[in-house]
Amino acid sequence: MTSMNKTFNFSAGPAMLPKSVMQRWQQLVAESPFPCSNISFMEIGHRTPEFQNVVAKLVGNLRELLQVPESYHILLMPGGGRMQFAALAMNLMARSPQGADYFETGLWSQQAIAEAERFGPVHTVASAVSSHYTHIPERADWVLRSDAAYCHMVSNETAHGLAFNKSPKVGEVPLVVDMTSDLLARPLKINDYGLIYAASQKNLGATGFTVVIVREDLLGHAPKTIPSQLDYQTYLTDPTPVTPVTFAIYLAGLITEWVKDQGGLKAMAKHNAVKASMLYDFLDASEHFVASVVPEYRSHTNVVFQLKNPTHTQALVAFTKARGLHGLAGHRVVGGLRASLYNAMPIEGVETLIDCLQCFFDA
Amino acid sequence: MTSMNKTFNFSAGPAMLPKSVMQRWQQLVAESPFPCSNISFMEIGHRTPEFQNVVAKLVGNLRELLQVPESYHILLMPGGGRMQFAALAMNLMARSPQGADYFETGLWSQQAIAEAERFGPVHTVASAVSSHYTHIPERADWVLRSDAAYCHMVSNETAHGLAFNKSPKVGEVPLVVDMTSDLLARPLKINDYGLIYAASQKNLGATGFTVVIVREDLLGHAPKTIPSQLDYQTYLTDPTPVTPVTFAIYLAGLITEWVKDQGGLKAMAKHNAVKASMLYDFLDASEHFVASVVPEYRSHTNVVFQLKNPTHTQALVAFTKARGLHGLAGHRVVGGLRASLYNAMPIEGVETLIDCLQCFFDA
Repeated sequence: MTSMNKTFNFSAGPAMLPKSVMQRWQQLVAESPFPCSNISFMEIGHRTPEFQNVVAKLVGNLRELLQVPESYHILLMPGGGRMQFAALAMNLMARSPQGADYFETGLWSQQAIAEAERFGPVHTVASAVSSHYTHIPERADWVLRSDAAYCHMVSNETAHGLAFNKSPKVGEVPLVVDMTSDLLARPLKINDYGLIYAASQKNLGATGFTVVIVREDLLGHAPKTIPSQLDYQTYLTDPTPVTPVTFAIYLAGLITEWVKDQGGLKAMAKHNAVKASMLYDFLDASEHFVASVVPEYRSHTNVVFQLKNPTHTQALVAFTKARGLHGLAGHRVVGGLRASLYNAMPIEGVETLIDCLQCFFDA
Repeated sequence: MTSMNKTFNFSAGPAMLPKSVMQRWQQLVAESPFPCSNISFMEIGHRTPEFQNVVAKLVGNLRELLQVPESYHILLMPGGGRMQFAALAMNLMARSPQGADYFETGLWSQQAIAEAERFGPVHTVASAVSSHYTHIPERADWVLRSDAAYCHMVSNETAHGLAFNKSPKVGEVPLVVDMTSDLLARPLKINDYGLIYAASQKNLGATGFTVVIVREDLLGHAPKTIPSQLDYQTYLTDPTPVTPVTFAIYLAGLITEWVKDQGGLKAMAKHNAVKASMLYDFLDASEHFVASVVPEYRSHTNVVFQLKNPTHTQALVAFTKARGLHGLAGHRVVGGLRASLYNAMPIEGVETLIDCLQCFFDA
């Protein structure tokens, strides 16, 4: 029942890695980038040509996979999503004395708002709070301001399982999007956005850096009173102005190669849609479970659901874990259950999960 | 000549790892913290009890090795040394309208000063510039201000090879020290300092976080207009309020175990002093080399030296690299040569280096 080959990690992140990438990584730890040397790639300086090639390859793969136009810079910045909540506000808030517009669609957009309020006024475009995060308000109910510094959204809310499955139209104001949990999950029209950012610990492998894809014309608004490491301009002439988390960059390089080998982002989107449909179809048909997000706004990445009788939640999490299915407890502020289906999750993992959820009640 | 067992990495960082730690790390990448599971420790969530134990163990080992009193907090923060240059100024500058005092002893203290100037006035206590970084000015020439917010020093300048081999007496003003390159290299009297910080990529293993050891009474001065991730108070109730770089924390945990196995910080200090003496003694006796830093201020960690005839520098770096000795070029802004002798560098590495430097002229 718990054989090594039937274990799946449904954790929201740090998240599952593709099996072939894990195998390559194990080789790399023991390998050296230098001939006749036992210096591991983990020990080499970030200014060596060997490491700079790794950085260039990662950035090149991101540009190719996402079809990023030349008018956008791709930056690899220190810190994670929450550091970027501050960085983006510090860099862009000064574009308008009116401050910025934010969508409030779940825990992460709330945290982005709280962070941005340290740096300027924040206006809420639309909120999913009153619907208890079951849907994003309709376009007609959005209050957009044409003079906002930018408009911020979280494309996929990992805790609440609510997603913008299409990019919203917000007019001329630059759309800034947190794609930490769904970058590389599907093709994007980069021109729909002014700035896209994603911390690395989901579809890019491991914690360690944040990818920022920013349109050239949005640069140059940061005041001198911000940390230089959070100023986008610091990264324009030197891709690694400080020592980066070298292993996370190596690992992300391997992952982008893996995504290319899988057929790129169209193939990823198809794979992810199949997994999500299988699970939501099962939940909707089941007498024991409920997935309360309205179908149009359901996340393909983090499937949030509850037991109709929630007293069994802990027992169910223990039951699945004992059968090799890890990380199914919901986010600590939301409760319930959650299955994260990042790129690395195979269809077999979802099949095994569905069998196990069914089995809990049949047992 | 270039057998796998005779390779040594003299790079200033990311730096050499202890061989036994590398072996354990290779096992860990393939192991799982969960029974009957193939989920790697690299994939597990940072809020799992398994990972929280790793964090607690690392912090406990640091407290034990450095004998950190209970009146100091030990924080694991995102970003590296340069991010901390900003964070410490943002957290502490408001303690005095006079701003802060800084020692200027090399490249890193200059960068710390440039960053601090974004957040308040900076006064230079003493500068090594006029001596071309050959010594730190005498105590009598320091201009200390008793009403400064804090006094900052870099204990060891990795680029210039200049070190405070004893902690300076600066009166009642809290002494703030960048120990990125020499934390865990020797025992410390923690009470000499108000705040000690060290990025993880030298004696703690790999890039990914910064250790901050801060005295309780210095907290609470950060304004609300700084990123929450750079506010020390964010880390008081939750050791990992954001997803940390999990592998770097695992690796640092292994390294602190290794330091304990080696006999702790007294043994480390002895080991490091032996290595530094061997190399400086060779350089001083040689007709071909010069180590220009005055002996009292010479770094035990980064031995900076030049060829008397610098036209051969590149040829020497190539000669050593071909013989398995990596990373001997000086810092790009300083030039010349540099051998970094972090904790993980064995005495055999220094012996091999000395033989090789001699051999270059005998050949």
